[in-house]
Amino acid sequence: MNSADHTFLLSGECIQQIIQVIGIDNIMDDLIERTYKGFIEFDANNNILSARKGFNYITPNEGLIEWMPIRNVIEEEVLLKVVAYHPQNPESFQLPTVISTISKYNTTNGHLDTILDGVLPTSLRTGAASAVASQLFGHPESKILGIIGCGAQAITQLHALSRVFDFEKVLYFDKDLIAQNSFEERVKILGLDIYIQSTPIPEIVENSDVLCTATSIAVDQGPLFDYHTSKEWLHINAVGSDFPGKIELPKSLLDESYVSPDFLKQAIVEGECQQLSEDQIGQDIITCLKKATDFYHLKEKLTVFDSTGMALEDQIVADMFIALAKSMNLGQYIALENRNTDVKNPYSFLFHTKKQTT
Amino acid sequence: MNSADHTFLLSGECIQQIIQVIGIDNIMDDLIERTYKGFIEFDANNNILSARKGFNYITPNEGLIEWMPIRNVIEEEVLLKVVAYHPQNPESFQLPTVISTISKYNTTNGHLDTILDGVLPTSLRTGAASAVASQLFGHPESKILGIIGCGAQAITQLHALSRVFDFEKVLYFDKDLIAQNSFEERVKILGLDIYIQSTPIPEIVENSDVLCTATSIAVDQGPLFDYHTSKEWLHINAVGSDFPGKIELPKSLLDESYVSPDFLKQAIVEGECQQLSEDQIGQDIITCLKKATDFYHLKEKLTVFDSTGMALEDQIVADMFIALAKSMNLGQYIALENRNTDVKNPYSFLFHTKKQTT
Repeated sequence: MNSADHTFLLSGECIQQIIQVIGIDNIMDDLIERTYKGFIEFDANNNILSARKGFNYITPNEGLIEWMPIRNVIEEEVLLKVVAYHPQNPESFQLPTVISTISKYNTTNGHLDTILDGVLPTSLRTGAASAVASQLFGHPESKILGIIGCGAQAITQLHALSRVFDFEKVLYFDKDLIAQNSFEERVKILGLDIYIQSTPIPEIVENSDVLCTATSIAVDQGPLFDYHTSKEWLHINAVGSDFPGKIELPKSLLDESYVSPDFLKQAIVEGECQQLSEDQIGQDIITCLKKATDFYHLKEKLTVFDSTGMALEDQIVADMFIALAKSMNLGQYIALENRNTDVKNPYSFLFHTKKQTT
Repeated sequence: MNSADHTFLLSGECIQQIIQVIGIDNIMDDLIERTYKGFIEFDANNNILSARKGFNYITPNEGLIEWMPIRNVIEEEVLLKVVAYHPQNPESFQLPTVISTISKYNTTNGHLDTILDGVLPTSLRTGAASAVASQLFGHPESKILGIIGCGAQAITQLHALSRVFDFEKVLYFDKDLIAQNSFEERVKILGLDIYIQSTPIPEIVENSDVLCTATSIAVDQGPLFDYHTSKEWLHINAVGSDFPGKIELPKSLLDESYVSPDFLKQAIVEGECQQLSEDQIGQDIITCLKKATDFYHLKEKLTVFDSTGMALEDQIVADMFIALAKSMNLGQYIALENRNTDVKNPYSFLFHTKKQTT
């Protein structure tokens, strides 16, 4: 533990430096392993999770600002991620859709121990969670990955999934032509030897073994497609649904699928699970992973990971970057919280001034 | 508005510097005026307040960490104060009981606009709120101020109240002898020409015109005193009750008093209002201030301001210090959130590296 007088500040720029040094594949492999381990070791008595709350609005722009809290009893800390979602950001401000910071507080004394960028971590951890879920539910011989929605999240979804499957082909679609047309250029950074092809949604659904939906579809405008085909197996990571009224998948497909939410309480409010009655919803991803062999038969069925995002994932990715930063001497310590010589006197600092001036 | 690429950071040290330059009396006068104005101008459609939530625990130490959110529609911002309460901090760690930071987010795009220390602001705004409430409910000829609980909050309570009343005498008590014995020395910084006297609680209650309770009394250990006397008037600022099960005032006194909470939804969960049925609770302080003349008769009665703390007060004090800091060129801008040349590609920063190395 650091001194309680300083807060460790880890900027997005430092996180970029860490990734540059370690390499994106090593980072993602490490994060997938940590996410798997974090899910398997999850203990509701140790990892106390609250469903996120927030403000949402349509002016000045459509958006929401939410806070996602988790307490880790053994680590003696509370983590709070504040995450903002503003779909017009790329076009209007050249800013990412998702902006975020993560704060960690010490439960010994309440000190703000660390603040770090949450933009890159959010994107990476969402990818890692899909990889973990797809390893459990996806067909082992999966060769074709479908991607609907080609924004920032799609890059880390493809990256994470390509670390755990040996895909031959990626089929992608975005109704936004800028995202659609730039996708192949953008994914070059991943250095993948995979055939990548722009494809209409019905053919993506028809042909994919694993599918990721990560769109900014507006409230009440979903689903993204109708489901008429009758596939033997398909695992879907539904990443974009994270707001009341926002859905990506057709109910007809959900009805035929085993749907595993990341965090049930949240998924029934803002995930694909909004569309289902409680008896139609499967066990959450953590429960499924803990009893993995019970769920192997689902690899040859239709499955959906309803990924609304959990503060547990944020804790896992934050811990990874903080550890790496400290081992690499990156980041800085700042004095943010007020400290006084006399903790019982908010004005005690004035005594020093008085003494200095007399 | 600042650039969305940087976050304005205002440390406790900078806030100390501001107070040193402006002077504590000018700061408190400004804050009391702003608090009064903020309460009077409160509009539930513009100032959207959520009751605070948090984690509380008894290990590793008794404490809680809470978040207090407010959205200001016109200002296009969300403010989130994270506040920690750890009563053992002064003795165990030489840290203040209350540790806090305040963050402000822009609702145009979700950018974290400002982070500032919340320790000094919390202490000051709690004092200012008591001053505003006491001006409304307190007897205009109030000469004797009682203080039960002589920790950090007591200093700013005394300071704020001394700016709006012409007290002749302060009667104080703390069961903690360190706090009790150091109080007179600590309040010297206020430069008050008031007779200050350590006094047993029953005599404080008996003789005070205005009373502040700001103790760390443990859950289920309240109230601080029994009420047997029959006073004509007394206004109490009940500051310490801010946790389920934590109360300071006897129900017999509340039953005879007009009790005005700061934020009803919160006060019935963690304030003195826990002890009352809804029909026993008066209008909240904002409603009372807006119809002040309707409440003047209470100046000669028993009244209680059930001050659990509102994010609205935090917004008012944060805005004051941010404005002062910027006018004085204090504080710093940091690049915290990740920014990429390509907002649709979390890894786009790697292209630059590649280009640089080839």
